Amino acid sequence: MMVEKKYTYTANNKIGDMSAEEFRNYGHQMIDWIADYLSNIEKYPVLSQVNPGDIKRSLPSAPPIQGESMENIFKDVEAKILPGITHWNHPGFMAYFNSTSSGPGILAELLSAAFNANGMLWRTSPALTELEEVTLNWFRKMLGLKDDFWGIIYDTASVSTMHAIAAAREQIEGVEIRRNGLTAKGNIRGFRFYASEQAHSSIDKASITLGFGIEGLRKIPVDKEFRMIPSELKSAIEEDRKNGWTPFCVVATVGTTSTTSIDPVDKIADICEKEKLWLHVDSAHAGVTAIIPEMRYIFNGVERADSLVVNPHKWMFTPVDLSVLLTRKKNILKRAFSLVPEYLKSSGDAEVENYMDYGIQLGRRFRALKLWFIIRYFGTEGIANRLKEHLRLGKIFSDWIINNPNFELMAPVPFSTTCFRAYPKGIIDETNLDVLNEALLNNVNSTGKIFLTHTKLNGKYVIRLVISGLRTEGRHITLAEQIIQTKLDELIAKGSN
Amino acid sequence: MMVEKKYTYTANNKIGDMSAEEFRNYGHQMIDWIADYLSNIEKYPVLSQVNPGDIKRSLPSAPPIQGESMENIFKDVEAKILPGITHWNHPGFMAYFNSTSSGPGILAELLSAAFNANGMLWRTSPALTELEEVTLNWFRKMLGLKDDFWGIIYDTASVSTMHAIAAAREQIEGVEIRRNGLTAKGNIRGFRFYASEQAHSSIDKASITLGFGIEGLRKIPVDKEFRMIPSELKSAIEEDRKNGWTPFCVVATVGTTSTTSIDPVDKIADICEKEKLWLHVDSAHAGVTAIIPEMRYIFNGVERADSLVVNPHKWMFTPVDLSVLLTRKKNILKRAFSLVPEYLKSSGDAEVENYMDYGIQLGRRFRALKLWFIIRYFGTEGIANRLKEHLRLGKIFSDWIINNPNFELMAPVPFSTTCFRAYPKGIIDETNLDVLNEALLNNVNSTGKIFLTHTKLNGKYVIRLVISGLRTEGRHITLAEQIIQTKLDELIAKGSN
Repeated sequence: MMVEKKYTYTANNKIGDMSAEEFRNYGHQMIDWIADYLSNIEKYPVLSQVNPGDIKRSLPSAPPIQGESMENIFKDVEAKILPGITHWNHPGFMAYFNSTSSGPGILAELLSAAFNANGMLWRTSPALTELEEVTLNWFRKMLGLKDDFWGIIYDTASVSTMHAIAAAREQIEGVEIRRNGLTAKGNIRGFRFYASEQAHSSIDKASITLGFGIEGLRKIPVDKEFRMIPSELKSAIEEDRKNGWTPFCVVATVGTTSTTSIDPVDKIADICEKEKLWLHVDSAHAGVTAIIPEMRYIFNGVERADSLVVNPHKWMFTPVDLSVLLTRKKNILKRAFSLVPEYLKSSGDAEVENYMDYGIQLGRRFRALKLWFIIRYFGTEGIANRLKEHLRLGKIFSDWIINNPNFELMAPVPFSTTCFRAYPKGIIDETNLDVLNEALLNNVNSTGKIFLTHTKLNGKYVIRLVISGLRTEGRHITLAEQIIQTKLDELIAKGSN
Repeated sequence: MMVEKKYTYTANNKIGDMSAEEFRNYGHQMIDWIADYLSNIEKYPVLSQVNPGDIKRSLPSAPPIQGESMENIFKDVEAKILPGITHWNHPGFMAYFNSTSSGPGILAELLSAAFNANGMLWRTSPALTELEEVTLNWFRKMLGLKDDFWGIIYDTASVSTMHAIAAAREQIEGVEIRRNGLTAKGNIRGFRFYASEQAHSSIDKASITLGFGIEGLRKIPVDKEFRMIPSELKSAIEEDRKNGWTPFCVVATVGTTSTTSIDPVDKIADICEKEKLWLHVDSAHAGVTAIIPEMRYIFNGVERADSLVVNPHKWMFTPVDLSVLLTRKKNILKRAFSLVPEYLKSSGDAEVENYMDYGIQLGRRFRALKLWFIIRYFGTEGIANRLKEHLRLGKIFSDWIINNPNFELMAPVPFSTTCFRAYPKGIIDETNLDVLNEALLNNVNSTGKIFLTHTKLNGKYVIRLVISGLRTEGRHITLAEQIIQTKLDELIAKGSN
């Protein structure tokens, strides 16, 4: 990496930063290296092939006393760090929900690190606060939502969701949880909120964090297509009220993690309205597809939600981290979290938005910059076209599964995530099928060409293949099909020996 | 900005990312622009001088349909964003607790955005997890702490502290809060933890978030030097126990926000041990100075703490965000937060560290990279030398205040933060002094040369001047003295007219 050697430098005798000349020199080398890295990313195994401890053992156990040259640091990046990277930007990354970065996103992060602005208050960088307002307003429009939704950027969907549920908690009538806590007198049994059995683990973590405990979240059964059953929700709420619980919130998911199933938000909204419960919608992964006019139906009912989380850092080419919470109850979120000590007061506070009032985090990076770069560089249409292409590629793969007698489709495919398993003739025992599919997944991943992950559906081991990478093309789907087929054939041949 | 025009590009007709050539071109322009920006930063007013709404009004209210050229985006950065930046890297930024970035830190963030690795699991980038382990081990050694402390990186001190207090909550005996929540039967009155009146507002926010409410945190009085009074802590705990509260944690601060006072951690640790309470130490700003051997005394007693937060992104030249939580009770933190759904399980989980087990956030950026770059590039000695220089500059300024008959020093100066007020002859009324000092602060800040903030101590309006910027030199202290003196003279002259 970056072999040209223009400067050697020991920082110890100096006060201050790296010189501008050094920054220029190493910065140019780094930009060139990244351009090469992204162009040649398919040369690397998508899933890192190192063993636990390899990297740790390759690094000194004590920090250097004297400063080192950037050349040495760059060399170690190539020799020691790179082998331990699982390449999220690799077109063969089809695991979990991928997040890929993009040129404009990377450049915006570079600029953001240089400004190093902290947006805790409007005055600590007005551009940070106002660009966040403008860009989230754009994003809201792109999703087809009305202007009663107001937005804020958090780091992750887990944190966005936690804030949404904290706002729901703040809205509970007859108690003052912000002041008195959950243990205050008068709380006989406890508070409860609801999500489907297929909801993301971040909902459980929010329940733990906010003091409701695991018992505070009740999981509602799903139908055959892994969608929350509204009648089950209704009767759970009734039962809990009878038993002294205080229901306060429902989390619906548009695009669940295992299968990307879509909860019936409209029907859930009916129940929430009747029962006076906060409705939060988790659409962290799939929500961005509402930018495509033909996909806007996925947000049916979402216009009635109190809050919604969508992550541009998942499927909109934005480097991690950038999660967007949209809410129609901005003031309740603020009531839950605003707390301004003297050292953070400033004279114009009444006229401006201070984003620190809306969350637990005081420090706020300049994240809106990357969303702004990305929306402007690609354009709404450019973003929609790329998402459409992913949906098209996803359909090609799921059609291949459906038409292949050795495989079974395990869930509907509303977006670009296919849940499937090998189900070759002659193997019908469920345990054997689980073992076969786990072996298949491991063998596929050890090729280093593609990276898939698994889930369990109705107790069965299921492989997931997700298309959401900016660099994934038709040829990678063909490659994935070939690898999966070959690795299954090998396993069957081995089994019949 | 970046005037040379090599490419124009409309993204709509294309699928995929910006081309490598474009990335190279715009990346080089951006690096050059940043090198110039940091070299010439004193040309800009440190505190942005725009009015509320200026930036918002300068930007379109709807997102572009077609993609735009990078040239246009870059032009708008200069024309519209730059005037709205408060320059945290400016040597005159002496407000709040500053965080400045550095060349190696910025380059590491660039590389991190390009990898876009997510460290939720070991396998999702082994280098991310193992470099975090190695670098935090280095950092622990730099702070002079023994190897019973284990580290994890979170985004902000607010989030680090919340996790520490959540672990303290998990440790409470006789209840199962993780499972049953805080409302479960058996909790008669509630749980309480303690911090001084001078503790940071993030402690209050953690109490609200975790479900203890504002009432769950009891503030302990401070002595004349703004340090927690151990005997007051002791009697508060006794009183609370008598009244049915369950005490569970104490937060001590080494370097409080208003004055950087140092709580007597050793004496507080005695009480915590006797009362079996979790001891968390907040040293987000000042903790890094323990890297200087002569300053290591600030951590007296900290070796007995259960957890400690120190932020390299505050005073160690690391771009936001990077907060380090060190704990001697790693397993309790894990017990509080670990929760692994099927879709996140992987076969080698038992052998490796999966950092997602230690917190609410699932997604984790590759933050260790910047800490590694910074420690290697500057070296331990280089970092210590820079911090020493800031302490030296801080003393020059506080000596100037002490020796200037028009000013009054309002708190001891254990680090590089000076709390002072103008106290010219003839003004003795406290209200008039408050008005004078607020006017002085505003007039100083409106010069755009330096940026200071205020606090209140014993009800009095106090100005704070903090030296922690990588680019701040002796001449900036001289400039600060001149500006403060001149603006006070002007106010006095105006007042006597």
